[in-house]
Amino acid sequence: MAAKKIVLVVCDGLSDRPVKELDSKTPLQAARKPAMDALARHGMSGMMDVIGPGIIPGSDTAHLALFGYDPFKVYTGRGPIEAAGAGIPLERGDVAFRCNFGTVDDGFNVVDRRAGRIKAGTDELARAVSGMKIGDVTVLFKEGSEHRAVLVLRGKGLDHRVSDVDPHIEGKVLEAKPLAPEAAKTARALNEFVRRAVEILASHPLNAQRSKEGLRPANVILPRGAGSTRDLEPLSERYGIRCGAVAGVTLVKGICRMVGMEVPDIVGATGGLDTDYKAKADTALRLLDKKDFVFVNVKAGDVAGHDGDFRTKMRVIENIDMMLGLMLKDLHEDVVVALTCDHSTPVAVRDHSADPVPIAISGGGARVDGIKEFDEVSAASGALGRIAGMQLMPIMLGMADRARKFGA
Amino acid sequence: MAAKKIVLVVCDGLSDRPVKELDSKTPLQAARKPAMDALARHGMSGMMDVIGPGIIPGSDTAHLALFGYDPFKVYTGRGPIEAAGAGIPLERGDVAFRCNFGTVDDGFNVVDRRAGRIKAGTDELARAVSGMKIGDVTVLFKEGSEHRAVLVLRGKGLDHRVSDVDPHIEGKVLEAKPLAPEAAKTARALNEFVRRAVEILASHPLNAQRSKEGLRPANVILPRGAGSTRDLEPLSERYGIRCGAVAGVTLVKGICRMVGMEVPDIVGATGGLDTDYKAKADTALRLLDKKDFVFVNVKAGDVAGHDGDFRTKMRVIENIDMMLGLMLKDLHEDVVVALTCDHSTPVAVRDHSADPVPIAISGGGARVDGIKEFDEVSAASGALGRIAGMQLMPIMLGMADRARKFGA
Repeated sequence: MAAKKIVLVVCDGLSDRPVKELDSKTPLQAARKPAMDALARHGMSGMMDVIGPGIIPGSDTAHLALFGYDPFKVYTGRGPIEAAGAGIPLERGDVAFRCNFGTVDDGFNVVDRRAGRIKAGTDELARAVSGMKIGDVTVLFKEGSEHRAVLVLRGKGLDHRVSDVDPHIEGKVLEAKPLAPEAAKTARALNEFVRRAVEILASHPLNAQRSKEGLRPANVILPRGAGSTRDLEPLSERYGIRCGAVAGVTLVKGICRMVGMEVPDIVGATGGLDTDYKAKADTALRLLDKKDFVFVNVKAGDVAGHDGDFRTKMRVIENIDMMLGLMLKDLHEDVVVALTCDHSTPVAVRDHSADPVPIAISGGGARVDGIKEFDEVSAASGALGRIAGMQLMPIMLGMADRARKFGA
Repeated sequence: MAAKKIVLVVCDGLSDRPVKELDSKTPLQAARKPAMDALARHGMSGMMDVIGPGIIPGSDTAHLALFGYDPFKVYTGRGPIEAAGAGIPLERGDVAFRCNFGTVDDGFNVVDRRAGRIKAGTDELARAVSGMKIGDVTVLFKEGSEHRAVLVLRGKGLDHRVSDVDPHIEGKVLEAKPLAPEAAKTARALNEFVRRAVEILASHPLNAQRSKEGLRPANVILPRGAGSTRDLEPLSERYGIRCGAVAGVTLVKGICRMVGMEVPDIVGATGGLDTDYKAKADTALRLLDKKDFVFVNVKAGDVAGHDGDFRTKMRVIENIDMMLGLMLKDLHEDVVVALTCDHSTPVAVRDHSADPVPIAISGGGARVDGIKEFDEVSAASGALGRIAGMQLMPIMLGMADRARKFGA
């Protein structure tokens, strides 16, 4: 049997709970979504605990599980993923942090964790602190979108088990503490970096300019989410497949790059509500010409969930459905297509929840189970049953006749 | 509650995928099978990942899992199972191989891996090489069906981690290599055995006779699939049950003997499409008189799957249904009867696949879930849910009131 291609579409946070205003239907149950329903009708459905029952997935741990990696083994913190997303190639032993540019007063109190949501000039500020040497430790620092940035400490004997400098609320900048004896050197280097960065930023012309304009200066860097890179076996070696990804948001791009996917930058794919759905569909189809496995992430549903806005969530569903329709129209029936979510972000919760997510798979060796709609309730009667996120890759590979035999 | 008896019927490779010519139904969905459906109707159904989601089971690893043994822990290769099937009682430390009689030319090139599919006289050839001494290693060798045979090396310090001598395609006979330092002695003994066997077979009168008749001489022995025996705790000790098996094919017989089942030889039970279904039903019922657990394997569905022949597969289903009907007619309603497959062998794939298999269990403590048919889609809505192969024995024992209590 010839091996088949695989497309995995992940609707970030789209899965939900009953919404009172929708007559106690979920947004997926209430929305019009002919392409999603067609996928369910031609294949088999089920429910998925992306990490495990009662565990609220982060987008990072969820995607690791969906790609078949055990997040309990490979995930140490968000820093390395953000670094990969920002395009800093990590080396073994590096410790990486997510950072915010913030504003402190003279007493080292954080008065704004986002430096007035600074938009321009963070590249200049980043260049001013990157390359710093702290003993034998080298600092790599890169700006992200708006007030966000990534810090990497590179040197001998570093360890990611250090506490956050970012106080997460307004208040005193925290002193990083080693959470294990082996992390003492890292905590010292991190605190030294934060102190020196304050000095450099205080005298930076950009901040003088901002103060003059009545804007809050970006005069502190607040690292959090320390993590060290693990040598993840690339998907290509693990499963013998060529992989590509279509994603707008930095975090997801970072995970895709960490597992060895090609992640083209797409004009208009923003990771926001205004993302260009047609561009995503086109890029996915183009990638599939030269790849065996193409992953598509659409972030907008999660954004609507965090905003607690069920109407926007329903519009997102219709947009994703349009995107999926464009893809299905051009895909050969042999291609295994899976549609699911990385976690639920119920509008009533305004955050991720532990509720399992629906999944539908059609094409290839998928059986047809008679389920006619794609939503959190219909899918639960499907032939896939209740699966775990880490089982998804093996299941899709099996349906695509790419699984390996154990025994004779 | 009195403990009940258990019958497990495994339809080898019967589970399938949608078949275009059957209006996208699977052979099980399309066939007439009143006995199978009655079993589902009187009990509870589910789907089973025999080894795990996305893992293609071999028949050997699958049966180990179905009997409750973790194949990842106990399976080293097919050799020991074939040896058990051929009736060579293995000792701890033995290394066993599957072998073919083949034909080589003067340059040690394999021109036929099956020696013209030799049928008669392999018992004489086997006697000519069995008992050979290579240093302190003793050779046990026994013919199987047609060109097949089993080799066991017995001695101190042997290790199964050696590469195959069989090139698997026409070509040079391979030198066995140790795949771990501890296997150096085994590789040397194996290569010495192959060399000496060539000398003995070259001068054997049977081969002179074959050459005279224009038949290919069986002048080489090609070992492969090295494995060492593990001390499997017999089912009888593990679960306190007396066990018997009805199986035609050597591999399955071998596994049954390895786990301590009584496996009577049945005239007419061939392991092929022509097997005597009535004889199997009769033997199973007779065995059940003196056993607590009787296992029945029917190979024919797998054969039809490998042949890619959905019409034959449907006939096989009707034959197995007839066999099951004969059994159910005479079984007390208290007997726990389970019907399932060891793996899928879809006609479209012509090989094993990772697709989960249907299972139905009735009798004893089985609940009645309203599922009315036995097939890959109906079973998925059943009350058993999606289970793993290694859970089957404990589940059946529970329904038969033979499970053990944990706690007070």
